[in-house]
Amino acid sequence: MDRKDYLKEPVNHIKINGTLTVDQLMQQFKNSGSLGAGRLAAACDIYEKMLREKDCTIFLALSGAVVPAGMRTIVTDLIRKHLVDVIVSTGACMVHDAIEAVGGHHYKGGWAVNDAELYKYHLFRIYDIFVPEEDYIRLDFKFSEMYADIAKQRNGESLASDEFTHEIGKRLTDKNSILRAAYEENVPIFLPAVRDSEFGFIHWLHASQKDQKNVLLVDAFKDVPTVCGICARSPKNGMIVIGGGVPRNTIQSSALASKKGLDYAVVITLDRPETGGLSGSTLEETVSWGKMKGSADHVMVIGEALMVFPFLVASATERLGPDFKRNSFLQREKHAGKAN
Amino acid sequence: MDRKDYLKEPVNHIKINGTLTVDQLMQQFKNSGSLGAGRLAAACDIYEKMLREKDCTIFLALSGAVVPAGMRTIVTDLIRKHLVDVIVSTGACMVHDAIEAVGGHHYKGGWAVNDAELYKYHLFRIYDIFVPEEDYIRLDFKFSEMYADIAKQRNGESLASDEFTHEIGKRLTDKNSILRAAYEENVPIFLPAVRDSEFGFIHWLHASQKDQKNVLLVDAFKDVPTVCGICARSPKNGMIVIGGGVPRNTIQSSALASKKGLDYAVVITLDRPETGGLSGSTLEETVSWGKMKGSADHVMVIGEALMVFPFLVASATERLGPDFKRNSFLQREKHAGKAN
Amino acid sequence: MDRKDYLKEPVNHIKINGTLTVDQLMQQFKNSGSLGAGRLAAACDIYEKMLREKDCTIFLALSGAVVPAGMRTIVTDLIRKHLVDVIVSTGACMVHDAIEAVGGHHYKGGWAVNDAELYKYHLFRIYDIFVPEEDYIRLDFKFSEMYADIAKQRNGESLASDEFTHEIGKRLTDKNSILRAAYEENVPIFLPAVRDSEFGFIHWLHASQKDQKNVLLVDAFKDVPTVCGICARSPKNGMIVIGGGVPRNTIQSSALASKKGLDYAVVITLDRPETGGLSGSTLEETVSWGKMKGSADHVMVIGEALMVFPFLVASATERLGPDFKRNSFLQREKHAGKAN
Amino acid sequence: MDRKDYLKEPVNHIKINGTLTVDQLMQQFKNSGSLGAGRLAAACDIYEKMLREKDCTIFLALSGAVVPAGMRTIVTDLIRKHLVDVIVSTGACMVHDAIEAVGGHHYKGGWAVNDAELYKYHLFRIYDIFVPEEDYIRLDFKFSEMYADIAKQRNGESLASDEFTHEIGKRLTDKNSILRAAYEENVPIFLPAVRDSEFGFIHWLHASQKDQKNVLLVDAFKDVPTVCGICARSPKNGMIVIGGGVPRNTIQSSALASKKGLDYAVVITLDRPETGGLSGSTLEETVSWGKMKGSADHVMVIGEALMVFPFLVASATERLGPDFKRNSFLQREKHAGKAN
Repeated sequence: MDRKDYLKEPVNHIKINGTLTVDQLMQQFKNSGSLGAGRLAAACDIYEKMLREKDCTIFLALSGAVVPAGMRTIVTDLIRKHLVDVIVSTGACMVHDAIEAVGGHHYKGGWAVNDAELYKYHLFRIYDIFVPEEDYIRLDFKFSEMYADIAKQRNGESLASDEFTHEIGKRLTDKNSILRAAYEENVPIFLPAVRDSEFGFIHWLHASQKDQKNVLLVDAFKDVPTVCGICARSPKNGMIVIGGGVPRNTIQSSALASKKGLDYAVVITLDRPETGGLSGSTLEETVSWGKMKGSADHVMVIGEALMVFPFLVASATERLGPDFKRNSFLQREKHAGKAN
Repeated sequence: MDRKDYLKEPVNHIKINGTLTVDQLMQQFKNSGSLGAGRLAAACDIYEKMLREKDCTIFLALSGAVVPAGMRTIVTDLIRKHLVDVIVSTGACMVHDAIEAVGGHHYKGGWAVNDAELYKYHLFRIYDIFVPEEDYIRLDFKFSEMYADIAKQRNGESLASDEFTHEIGKRLTDKNSILRAAYEENVPIFLPAVRDSEFGFIHWLHASQKDQKNVLLVDAFKDVPTVCGICARSPKNGMIVIGGGVPRNTIQSSALASKKGLDYAVVITLDRPETGGLSGSTLEETVSWGKMKGSADHVMVIGEALMVFPFLVASATERLGPDFKRNSFLQREKHAGKAN
Repeated sequence: MDRKDYLKEPVNHIKINGTLTVDQLMQQFKNSGSLGAGRLAAACDIYEKMLREKDCTIFLALSGAVVPAGMRTIVTDLIRKHLVDVIVSTGACMVHDAIEAVGGHHYKGGWAVNDAELYKYHLFRIYDIFVPEEDYIRLDFKFSEMYADIAKQRNGESLASDEFTHEIGKRLTDKNSILRAAYEENVPIFLPAVRDSEFGFIHWLHASQKDQKNVLLVDAFKDVPTVCGICARSPKNGMIVIGGGVPRNTIQSSALASKKGLDYAVVITLDRPETGGLSGSTLEETVSWGKMKGSADHVMVIGEALMVFPFLVASATERLGPDFKRNSFLQREKHAGKAN
Repeated sequence: MDRKDYLKEPVNHIKINGTLTVDQLMQQFKNSGSLGAGRLAAACDIYEKMLREKDCTIFLALSGAVVPAGMRTIVTDLIRKHLVDVIVSTGACMVHDAIEAVGGHHYKGGWAVNDAELYKYHLFRIYDIFVPEEDYIRLDFKFSEMYADIAKQRNGESLASDEFTHEIGKRLTDKNSILRAAYEENVPIFLPAVRDSEFGFIHWLHASQKDQKNVLLVDAFKDVPTVCGICARSPKNGMIVIGGGVPRNTIQSSALASKKGLDYAVVITLDRPETGGLSGSTLEETVSWGKMKGSADHVMVIGEALMVFPFLVASATERLGPDFKRNSFLQREKHAGKAN
């Protein structure tokens, strides 16, 4: 590069003069420095590009306290508006959703509290959010029945994790539920670590019931070809990661195993790369594996996903406008399949 | 506390339905979970409270890449609109401002670059921002002359760091400059570590010039009673911290030394408390010292200040509306002083 | 508390005068301040206590780049010396072990590299470690055969994740392998997210082979009662966590589901609590759930596990001396079972 | 690079078999993976190289809770053994040293405490360390007298920050004091932000005393040519940074201003680069400025300095052995100066 190539874009300073919409501010971030605000603006651009691509399947990785943090409806709306196509999540995220779906709640609290007192009161803490134990117990019993019902219907045939969430979603009635919305909109939710959550303990409860003829069987590996197949068939693939862990890894590995490599990637995390763990690994690193294409639009936003993600969604919503309709590759494929 | 006291406020989920202004989204953050988004919303509430208080002096601590990140105009506007009263900063922040004030620029770049090539090209890197060396050299020579001029005028009398920034601001013409705006609006800028920046090396250049009769003398300790005096006289004191380091410490220590203790505190940082360093220390810890009152409204937002701060300012700007005029305690005091 | 209760233990300053053994330094950490070094010393004390308890089952959670970082033999030795009783890990950790077990290697590299070139060369990067693709391919084929063999033997019966690792370990010959050592020493390795790793893609390869009559079936939920049963039967339970994610969560949840609550806990992580995610959550928070007892000895060490863990192990090894023999509750139980 | 160049050094796994000295473990870290443990081992190698270089001046940057964490004697011993040549620190670090030098103490405590109660008891908290207010008050009065004495002696002439610490050290008697040891051993301690600490408030107390004829005058800029001169004259320069902030910046800037560029650099920090702040900036970035040579041996260790630094010192101490004598460039220069 020549010297002058490094000096093409002077930083324009952000101007806040009166009321701004989220995207008006984001547009300024874009022209400003490329530090934090610039990276967030880049994430918005990349998400917009994914959405406007004719044939890009959008994977959303959900981990951490998405629901306790108040982002349940954001995710539900993204599903209903077809602004995400596939969800890969932790068991816990869907448990949090399920708790609210069967009438439970998360409560605003604080972190400088007496945990021994919370224990005495049967209140569970998630940083500064509280959940009463009875909400978990209600979930346990309602879901144990659902497991029995699903198992009966399956009659010995195993389920993949996405079939499991589909069957659960089918049996929920809460319109605000992520699981329900995904069921209604044919958006698959994969839970590669479904066992590592209350869903695992509910299974124990369900399996231990007397006169249980059919026990729900989730085949740990059964969803592998399904996720990889989506990557393989989709002309393009993009991911948005909230947090890290298993959901991020599963999407990236599927992009590799399907020999496609991601075309777009946005990761929002506070994890850092130096430990060698997957959650904080740079997107550059994924290029060496073929998980992401070298030419992919990508950015890593260093921040709490639960603060950053709503800005991303609000900005995209504003850019697309009220009349935007997305007919994704997967939805078209599904309709074509039904037509046949 | 009774059990029910822990379960008063269920988390309301954020709804993004069409275009939202920054504060409309922020209001939703407020009703949502108290994790990241909730803490940012709390920060906005606290800043609004400070601004609406009749008699609260607002200290802004600036550290890090505020200007390279494109936030120069935000700070300048806050000064001109009297939405901050006192600035405590690093030398580097004001050097970045000065570079642009004398015609230099910061340029958007990248971090995955060849630093040896940048060195060869005399381009300095600040994470993913570049500054050409000639902009520093221009600063060196212009400011060296300014130093000589100030020294001549002072004729041996020492300056405090806020007098230094005042004299510099007086000699700048760029309306967008933080230093200039502060000079015009009588907002003091304290630089407790002024020496640890290009200002220190400019001094060396200035002092080494032949025929130099008067050398600029900044008395390291001279601003101590001034900052403390502001805390002491102000009926209430609040701080907003971008980053950490010396600026945060100076404000907190002044609140302690003046025996007032802060009434409001917002800290935006990625630093963490476990090292025992000041920058990441919790605001609770400051209560033990008397740096902050036990009853103070306070919040620590974990995030990159250079992404988070514009949202805070945009939200406050929107809440206050176009007709909001703030006549701060310090400004009133100044006018009263002049009237006498 | 009275004032004097806060002032009981003055900080003793560490003295490094000549050669020190790891534990000699650690003993000084103990008497020094309670910041970083103090927390590491506390971790050593807690691990020693767990080991000297007659009846404490020790769970080791492994996540991240344990093997690429060179800690494979440390883990293998802990298993062989019975200094850990149960391992809960990610699929990736055991894949890394398996790669070396079938003749592959991890190579020291750097992070400031050209990932596009690595991709071209079929070299995978884990931060600053490289693995050649052929080592993965070798694993794929060897393990695909193993899967077929295991499936044939099982003849339709499903496996739990710990049975899966046991069967794999049985078929490996490398004495340095974690999987092999665990097999030989009857230390169960649970992989609650076994699917999220190369093991999942090997399954795909295996299942897609022609003439495949039996396909390996891992029941996602089958290990739940096994882990919980260990917690329930063990008079005491302790955990040491390297990293976070699924392994930490599984151990904690099992301690909850078994209504025991952990008696000891050491977590080594760089994650932080504010996101609400499990990996960075404080140990105090786990008390509210009943995952850990309020009275438990516990400490969270903020650091890269891959730097901190060897110090912990070296210190414990030194304290116990060469003659220490641990006959753990689980081993005694196993022998009693065989005797019957 | 050819493919085989990436695959030269397979990771050797660490073996902990019986008691190990700190350096025996460190030597294993060296041969292991290049993640955390590998970076720490590299730091030890670099420090050893600096020490064995005939003509390398070693700058130690101290920030954060070095003394409260129990590392005071480590620093004092490094000074007395001539294993560091120049110290650049924060005011706070030297205040902590001074508190103990005049009979005060830091006390081990906890972080989950009632800060309002601590305030009531006049106990100051530094994360999990307590300091009683009376220890600060004692310091205030003793040092205020010292200031008066120094000022009297100076008779109007200003001091540079290193002269200030020299004069203070001269007046202390505690052999374990960093300030005293540095005075005795002719190791300069620079405090570029001396004002941002109790030293600033002591100055206020001192200056406000009646009948005060001479007030201590510290010229903020006076130490600039001194630090730069050391860099310029030293054939080679290396730095070890504990934490970040002003001390790191001052050393790096001096290496730049003196047109030398550092030859060696070790930084131990938990800060991260993405904010654009100096403390977390990569060492690669410093190359673009000329603060460090492109060819310099350097490493950044991600960790709590207060846990990592003792391992570094213990390892170096062991490697050098009891008979190692270092006659540094600066010491030789000083003796030559006296001889003339």
